[in-house]
Amino acid sequence: MEIPVYRDILEENDLKAKANSDLFKKFSILTINLMASPGAGKTALLERTIEELSPSMRMAVIEGDLATNLDQERIRKHGVPAVQINTGSGCHLRADMVSEALEEIPLAGLDMLFIENVGNLICPAEFRLGEDLRVILASVPEGEEKPLKYPVMFREADAVVLNKIDLLPYVPFNREAFLCNLYSIAPKVPLFSLSCRTGEGLPAWIEWLKLQRGLIRRA
Amino acid sequence: MEIPVYRDILEENDLKAKANSDLFKKFSILTINLMASPGAGKTALLERTIEELSPSMRMAVIEGDLATNLDQERIRKHGVPAVQINTGSGCHLRADMVSEALEEIPLAGLDMLFIENVGNLICPAEFRLGEDLRVILASVPEGEEKPLKYPVMFREADAVVLNKIDLLPYVPFNREAFLCNLYSIAPKVPLFSLSCRTGEGLPAWIEWLKLQRGLIRRA
Repeated sequence: MEIPVYRDILEENDLKAKANSDLFKKFSILTINLMASPGAGKTALLERTIEELSPSMRMAVIEGDLATNLDQERIRKHGVPAVQINTGSGCHLRADMVSEALEEIPLAGLDMLFIENVGNLICPAEFRLGEDLRVILASVPEGEEKPLKYPVMFREADAVVLNKIDLLPYVPFNREAFLCNLYSIAPKVPLFSLSCRTGEGLPAWIEWLKLQRGLIRRA
Repeated sequence: MEIPVYRDILEENDLKAKANSDLFKKFSILTINLMASPGAGKTALLERTIEELSPSMRMAVIEGDLATNLDQERIRKHGVPAVQINTGSGCHLRADMVSEALEEIPLAGLDMLFIENVGNLICPAEFRLGEDLRVILASVPEGEEKPLKYPVMFREADAVVLNKIDLLPYVPFNREAFLCNLYSIAPKVPLFSLSCRTGEGLPAWIEWLKLQRGLIRRA
């Protein structure tokens, strides 16, 4: 919708995102905005990541969903603070929602904050939350053409994770075609192919996260 | 966004949807708005449906995507007219887009029109296109909690299709839990569990479609 009121909403959001970003910088927190289709495995990736990085990294999670606290409960079982945002019919998180959620998270001493956006491969792309990095999660059963069909989101990715590679023997997914499609949209994006179920491919993702955290600390 | 301009957009859309609906009624066309997450298998379901119903039913398809003509090409291979709508960054189809696409489809003699919406389990719910029926496609790898997390869309469904049941042995999906979740949101919705890949479960869906077509004809 290219209407003035929408432009105003985006501008207002950018201002609030900047305030969030300033706060994250002040506390040297690496903040990741995790975006994906419904059911791609966002929460599963966070659970695996928390398992791998605890307790050396102190983490917190903000969960975005239209309804339910299911994801917050899953994260809390791993001993990590999690705040649930319910958007009702809202199709993406906004920076002001994140700002409000931050009031419930002790920021001092935190190393990483993950923001799991609403399951949607379109709308979250336009709303910055103050994050350092935008990670797009795709999954094998969704098919290899997703980067072509949802270019707005893939174009802005700082990293792409391809989840559910354990299903490759059971679904028609052409890995080479996925790579070609992805790099035609985002020629330089790092790609991590993994399975949250089996753990295959997780180490590279974890090492990349640690590296990113180190860059923040030094900045 | 509960802002007046958004309400105006919805009202304007409803008017255009009514005009589309009048046109479908005039030509006795059963029109289905097919909605799902990215990669749930919307186009695959249409391909299977066309194979089963051709040539006794005359069908056409309107394809909605942010970008590419990939789905239009897939449908045309089956000898059925298909019009592609590219929404750019738009997260759903609107009734006026459908109205424009209809100019490219010969309506006389058509039995069924399928409108494949943009892959998005949230935003398309609020925009009527003039359709007779709204069909929501879920898929096994997305997990059993989707009806709870995306209640706005499931609540309005006239039928739900659960695709990719061939993957049940390979993913953690609790079928009973899915049923409970679905019926807690939409207590009376017909559910068709099937696999577009193997063809299992397709006959019930096809028979239901024929029945729905019959109801339109008699009206």
